[in-house]
Amino acid sequence: MDVYRAARFLENKLKVLGFQTEIWETPGQPSLFAERIENPKLPTLLVYGHLDVQPVDPLDKWKKPPFEPWVQGNKLFGRGSADDKGQVMIHVKACEGLIKKEGRLPVNVKFIIEGEEEVGSPNFEFLLKKHRNRLESAATLISDTAMVAEGRPSISCATRGLICFEIEASGPTTDLHSGSFGGVVRNPLTVLSQILANMMDKKGKVTIPGFYRDVVGLTKQERLLFKKVKFLEKELGRVSGVPSLGGEKGYSVLERVWARPTFEIHGLSGGFQGEGSKTIIPTCALAKVSMRLVPKQNPSQIASLFISHVKKLVPKGVKVAVRQIPGGGPAWMEDIGHPAFRAASESLKQAFGREPVFIRCGGSIFAPEILKRYFPKTPVILIGFGLPNENSHAPNEWLSLENYRRGIAACHYFFLAVAARSIVNFAN
Amino acid sequence: MDVYRAARFLENKLKVLGFQTEIWETPGQPSLFAERIENPKLPTLLVYGHLDVQPVDPLDKWKKPPFEPWVQGNKLFGRGSADDKGQVMIHVKACEGLIKKEGRLPVNVKFIIEGEEEVGSPNFEFLLKKHRNRLESAATLISDTAMVAEGRPSISCATRGLICFEIEASGPTTDLHSGSFGGVVRNPLTVLSQILANMMDKKGKVTIPGFYRDVVGLTKQERLLFKKVKFLEKELGRVSGVPSLGGEKGYSVLERVWARPTFEIHGLSGGFQGEGSKTIIPTCALAKVSMRLVPKQNPSQIASLFISHVKKLVPKGVKVAVRQIPGGGPAWMEDIGHPAFRAASESLKQAFGREPVFIRCGGSIFAPEILKRYFPKTPVILIGFGLPNENSHAPNEWLSLENYRRGIAACHYFFLAVAARSIVNFAN
Repeated sequence: MDVYRAARFLENKLKVLGFQTEIWETPGQPSLFAERIENPKLPTLLVYGHLDVQPVDPLDKWKKPPFEPWVQGNKLFGRGSADDKGQVMIHVKACEGLIKKEGRLPVNVKFIIEGEEEVGSPNFEFLLKKHRNRLESAATLISDTAMVAEGRPSISCATRGLICFEIEASGPTTDLHSGSFGGVVRNPLTVLSQILANMMDKKGKVTIPGFYRDVVGLTKQERLLFKKVKFLEKELGRVSGVPSLGGEKGYSVLERVWARPTFEIHGLSGGFQGEGSKTIIPTCALAKVSMRLVPKQNPSQIASLFISHVKKLVPKGVKVAVRQIPGGGPAWMEDIGHPAFRAASESLKQAFGREPVFIRCGGSIFAPEILKRYFPKTPVILIGFGLPNENSHAPNEWLSLENYRRGIAACHYFFLAVAARSIVNFAN
Repeated sequence: MDVYRAARFLENKLKVLGFQTEIWETPGQPSLFAERIENPKLPTLLVYGHLDVQPVDPLDKWKKPPFEPWVQGNKLFGRGSADDKGQVMIHVKACEGLIKKEGRLPVNVKFIIEGEEEVGSPNFEFLLKKHRNRLESAATLISDTAMVAEGRPSISCATRGLICFEIEASGPTTDLHSGSFGGVVRNPLTVLSQILANMMDKKGKVTIPGFYRDVVGLTKQERLLFKKVKFLEKELGRVSGVPSLGGEKGYSVLERVWARPTFEIHGLSGGFQGEGSKTIIPTCALAKVSMRLVPKQNPSQIASLFISHVKKLVPKGVKVAVRQIPGGGPAWMEDIGHPAFRAASESLKQAFGREPVFIRCGGSIFAPEILKRYFPKTPVILIGFGLPNENSHAPNEWLSLENYRRGIAACHYFFLAVAARSIVNFAN
């Protein structure tokens, strides 16, 4: 229902600007499609973004209610301010500015604002199949990532893939007294801990057999790009809020976060969680885990390797179920040699007064990879206006209003830059 | 407040029977003391029990509200029915029966009904120090354990000790996006899993260095007692509700649960625990753990060994705090050669029509060990009227009404047996 409300809200904003809008249903949450076709002969830009947001818990850590946005200093706070509603509004505002000034847009513009990005875009391909011809464009623009630092505009040319799982260990049918049964009944919490501990070694390497088989090293050119933004390593350490960074031995910080696959535990629960102690052997224990993947790793192959590895670690007396959580997908990487990237680069320089850096994104956005499969020749350009410490999946998420304003300007210049070039450069 | 209410409830019941009562305050929850001194020359029996109960969660697993006891078939359901309010009432009813029949009790009777047994009796020694002379007796009777099976009366002559801890792993100051930081920020859930997994090896042995140092093997006589109740191993398997029992290799099921120390995890929590997935590196993770101890193991020494072992497993980038939960204590073992045990044995035979078995208790009750330290010559007799599948720390706890009635009879006979013997036999 809330995704519908968000879709209707945005639909009204775009209708006012003369866009034709459609709510596209899926087996899950709906998406909003909107287009303003100025002239079929003009190049078309597709803007992708998303309506849905991360869960708000822990709610008690928010300074104010997460869905009543507030401004403090130069920051707009609220769930979705950076990820991704605020960034979608940058494109809407860029359109509004151009229309107000010229009475029209310099290019045709389409919006596809998805309702399920945060759960791994499980139905985005369904939309691509159904509406392929409506989504053709000369270039796709996505603002759902972050700049590397304040004042440093950034273009992301790769994302990591993602697969998510639940692991449930079940033992006795009722909680048992650990005095009467401790030592003879296998404890599901112990079994779960042991399974999880067996996913990574002390050097930070994932120990699932075959996990790294298809991972390729960096090319010379990629190493060069990584070197150019080496200052980011310190920045990552600073915004993480931990005294020292860890990770897989033998790789630099940026390699670990951009070009190496990982295994992470996101949640653990089971047994007694109240005050003091309750000496039970609980009936079950649950873990939420995920793996980030890099180019060439096949998500379904990795999923099989993971499930087999877990199964080998299950002792007698405890049942272990592994469930894949729908959504997720492979990594994505873009060839930045396409002229659209030069146009994007120049627009960012105009708006921010500084050359952008080309970076990767350690996170996962599946739309680029899916779009790329359906439109292999259309460049997908990720220009993020968030910041690394924006609390994007955490309480008190915020967006810099400075970046919001400069972002609108950058999009304005990009729209004009695309219009100024021959459409041929951007042909499918 | 609820412990006070329970104390007042029982106080009224005992006052009606002519007992002098006193609520004994402690730095924690209060205890109820009551005495009916018939004649200073008669031997005195001390009955120990407890007013407090285990937490009721998970509340949704209860068929009816846990504090509104209900009868179904021959079972009395409700929190505390078996552990320990129902069993305390057995002694009250035995007194009531004797008084109604004879107008008096055949021995002097004292009750000390504690308010903090379920949290490890942290202030019971405080009461012993303060009221030592009021608690002197020829024998102490405790009904807070279970019979080995229906129709098989049982006397417990040992309990395991217990120490409880919380382990908290703290990483980033706010939940971090596992895409942006996965691979470089150490995940507190991973660290906690690895610490917990390092407490036990694949053979079910606790791997804390020095953990088994003071553990002594069974004597010939003890092995013989264990053999007599070997049928219990099957029973344990049956009531546990798990397809197969596990545990430390090289020991029988009864040895594992009665005479071997253990490490158990009782609760795990941290990160995202809702539906679906939320890809965060959470700020912290918490585990509740305990160790059951056997005779000769020193709780504070084992606590130090455990804490040192945990500290050695902490990697850079994550802080780990280990907090001991107040309460707990050493194991207890009784010499069953004392004539009071013969009296108890005969009384049980009279009431149940069958010789009792001598067993140990895998659980932990600290009062016996503390009483023994203050009154080394007074036998402590644990006669339990619960049953192994009574759900004592779980939802839908129950007490067999058959055992309740036979228990009252057994106590009745025991009171008379003690009265019939010379007080000299039971002198301190």
